[in-house]
Amino acid sequence: MEVILGVSNRHVHLTEEDYRTLFGDEPLGVVKELVQPGQFSSDKKVSIKTEKRTLENVRLLGPLRSYTQVEVSKTDSFALGINPPIRNSGDLEGSAVVTIVGPMGEVTKPCCILANRHLHISPSQRVECGLVGVDKVKAIVRSEKTTVFEDVFIKESPDYTLELHLDTDDGNGSLGKTGDMVEIIKY
Amino acid sequence: MEVILGVSNRHVHLTEEDYRTLFGDEPLGVVKELVQPGQFSSDKKVSIKTEKRTLENVRLLGPLRSYTQVEVSKTDSFALGINPPIRNSGDLEGSAVVTIVGPMGEVTKPCCILANRHLHISPSQRVECGLVGVDKVKAIVRSEKTTVFEDVFIKESPDYTLELHLDTDDGNGSLGKTGDMVEIIKY
Repeated sequence: MEVILGVSNRHVHLTEEDYRTLFGDEPLGVVKELVQPGQFSSDKKVSIKTEKRTLENVRLLGPLRSYTQVEVSKTDSFALGINPPIRNSGDLEGSAVVTIVGPMGEVTKPCCILANRHLHISPSQRVECGLVGVDKVKAIVRSEKTTVFEDVFIKESPDYTLELHLDTDDGNGSLGKTGDMVEIIKY
Repeated sequence: MEVILGVSNRHVHLTEEDYRTLFGDEPLGVVKELVQPGQFSSDKKVSIKTEKRTLENVRLLGPLRSYTQVEVSKTDSFALGINPPIRNSGDLEGSAVVTIVGPMGEVTKPCCILANRHLHISPSQRVECGLVGVDKVKAIVRSEKTTVFEDVFIKESPDYTLELHLDTDDGNGSLGKTGDMVEIIKY
């Protein structure tokens, strides 16, 4: 089975409250619709700051959420000098403390994770793909540096559509690019 | 078969001539011996500059070689705005142009590559491991993000000892660290 690949660069999700702290009354604009329905790359960027380093121009994705979350790669985490856990989006247990800096203010809280490898899927697509009752799959990116990614978690929601999300370490290591078609294999 | 893993951060090799251009008469000192016999992390750092960006504090490895070569990750190459090919060390065909900046001068030339995944091995180890006549193997890094790396090239020399080299994209994506033991599998 082939699915489309999305390589996620470091990015931020914000709550309404944290958005107001960082951007005040500025409206949140859409730069580009993402593959997942309703999700978008916004017109806002922040800086991610730790004692060791600041990463600038980190994109805020929209819409606003019920949690504030910073997703970085392991490579980014070394630059920042932090050790975030590998988590599902929204699971912030044990997440690393960072400061998110906007033009109007900043927020410091434990909210930084390494996102796990995951496959977005709708309930009907899960049936079609024969993945009901399956929690994890493998994904193969074929290139000059072909790579088999294990531990790809299936994330089902009526709001999702079929798409594999890898971070930039995995995407760049395998030479996979957003929009590539990649193979999914059942265990 | 298990072998030790070395995750290679971006680094530079220099010819004697280019070393003199960058560092003048300063002697090249050893900071740390590497796993490969005779190779060392030196006491010298350079900057790697392109029109788009400069990466500072890039380590020079020693000893000096018959070629000047900059090895970066795909992630680094996006930051630098260049598109280096995937190459064996020393094969600079089609390599990307960068400027290497030292305290005394700088050198601009096509010398930047993405190193291929490779397994260092001595001739006797190759016999012991049953890898005579085999050009490529797979490597598995087991972690919370278990990854199977294909296209691992075997590099044999009497000067080598058994060690798997991955770049930081592959190392960090799989959560593999220098010194980890990882599994090698024949095709």
